[in-house]
Amino acid sequence: MSLVILGGSSSRPLAFKIAKELNVEFMEVETRRFPDGEKYVRILGDVSGKNVVVVQSMYHRPDEYLMEYFLIVDALKDLGAKKVIGVIPYFAYARQDQRFKPGEAISLKTVTKLIEFAGTDELYVIDVHRHRVEEAEFSRLAKIPVFYLTAMPELAKYAVEHFNLDNPVVIGPDAEAEFWAKIAAETIGAEYDYLEKQRISDREVVIKPKKLNVKGREVLIVDDIVSTGGTMVRAIDVVKKGGAKRVISACTHPVLVEDALTKILLAGAEALVGTDTIPSPVSFVSVAPIIARNLRERYL
Amino acid sequence: MSLVILGGSSSRPLAFKIAKELNVEFMEVETRRFPDGEKYVRILGDVSGKNVVVVQSMYHRPDEYLMEYFLIVDALKDLGAKKVIGVIPYFAYARQDQRFKPGEAISLKTVTKLIEFAGTDELYVIDVHRHRVEEAEFSRLAKIPVFYLTAMPELAKYAVEHFNLDNPVVIGPDAEAEFWAKIAAETIGAEYDYLEKQRISDREVVIKPKKLNVKGREVLIVDDIVSTGGTMVRAIDVVKKGGAKRVISACTHPVLVEDALTKILLAGAEALVGTDTIPSPVSFVSVAPIIARNLRERYL
Repeated sequence: MSLVILGGSSSRPLAFKIAKELNVEFMEVETRRFPDGEKYVRILGDVSGKNVVVVQSMYHRPDEYLMEYFLIVDALKDLGAKKVIGVIPYFAYARQDQRFKPGEAISLKTVTKLIEFAGTDELYVIDVHRHRVEEAEFSRLAKIPVFYLTAMPELAKYAVEHFNLDNPVVIGPDAEAEFWAKIAAETIGAEYDYLEKQRISDREVVIKPKKLNVKGREVLIVDDIVSTGGTMVRAIDVVKKGGAKRVISACTHPVLVEDALTKILLAGAEALVGTDTIPSPVSFVSVAPIIARNLRERYL
Repeated sequence: MSLVILGGSSSRPLAFKIAKELNVEFMEVETRRFPDGEKYVRILGDVSGKNVVVVQSMYHRPDEYLMEYFLIVDALKDLGAKKVIGVIPYFAYARQDQRFKPGEAISLKTVTKLIEFAGTDELYVIDVHRHRVEEAEFSRLAKIPVFYLTAMPELAKYAVEHFNLDNPVVIGPDAEAEFWAKIAAETIGAEYDYLEKQRISDREVVIKPKKLNVKGREVLIVDDIVSTGGTMVRAIDVVKKGGAKRVISACTHPVLVEDALTKILLAGAEALVGTDTIPSPVSFVSVAPIIARNLRERYL
């Protein structure tokens, strides 16, 4: 089956890497902006009868990238593409998957419906902010197949090799992140734990690892996303105070609002390691091989 | 029938004015942005069983305002709104209504489909960039009713009264703008014309009014949109060189990219008059009464 890879303006280098990994055609898309801000989209190649992969991450200016995605997908269908495979490495709009307060928009539902309606036949996402959205959740909202990929094994392997970690313990900064810590730890054969608030007395609450002792240990803290950096900084503080010898932080999506990276380094992490779902100064690990592997299994 | 007016973050003051004109409920919507750029939307009132007007213009950051519009409309439908009436005073994405070059996205089609799919039951727009999009065009693309409103009469009346124009002639800067000049001129009982390129010899082309002489006349130049200001500046030059005594410029949508306004004033227009479809330093005319009048006829 012929497979073509193209990237929207948020993820063109990543799309190119995926095409190279798979040794299939990388197709260019012209995208530019009119003076009033509206986007122009033109597919620069023949897609008729082909399976087309559209890579478009949703960081920083998610609405702009999403509208561009809709324009690309609708154009591909007009031009006779057989199947449109959406790859949205960082999927924004995952927070609001239900109405927490009366009157709220259920953004995940709206966005999923629109992605589907625009002409997406199946969707790949990576490490979607887990504390509420799970595969079952997406499946409830989407009629098209949604495939969940994870970058945790690659992040863990990179951290161990690059920083020569010696018998590290993997820590999730909160209960929700235990899920990520488990995947990362199993990849590198390490122990894992997560941080939780524990009540010591009527007056005192401490945050500490649920079961393990990090004293004298090398610690890898992993999470799906680093946004303002608050959660990661708190976790670094906790393991440093707990006597950790070394701390490396890792996340799939380095959103890195304002001085998040500086705060993390000042807190005492040797480094923050992220992926290229969001281009950033810490995007040392590429998700291209992960996406390519999954596309290869299904299409090549 | 109960009618409720609400505004997205691009058009809240305009929505408030419309509600006041109609003496109906103005409902607040909470809109804010998460650190990764995604929008949060919450409707702050009961819309169940009501006809709800959503006012959201699409200037400067059209994709952001459009996504917010989708979230608002989908939430309203979830919350039991009877009918959602979209008012998009400045409708971006009107340029690409066909495939001019192979592979292009037909953006107007994609956007119209999405607006409809999100749950819009009918749509009001004002002075949509006319050179290609006409009512017939929209009707071909949209299944929902689309109502075309114009601000040209109000712009013309304001210019005449505010600047005491004496027997003015109304000029469209190009053939496409003759349509606007005609509406404006008929409102104030003036003559109108448009500028066209005329070949004088093998070598020479001049731009001048098609039939009228502007020498010694007071001139009102009208167009639907002033974006970079290039077209308007050229038109001011032409009528000044043709001997016009005074020049006032007017447009419905003052996009005003960068120094457009300065260029227009330097070219010799006494003023540029625009509307509040796009908030700007020249938005002297409000479209609230125009929208209110049409909603009143249909709903009150």
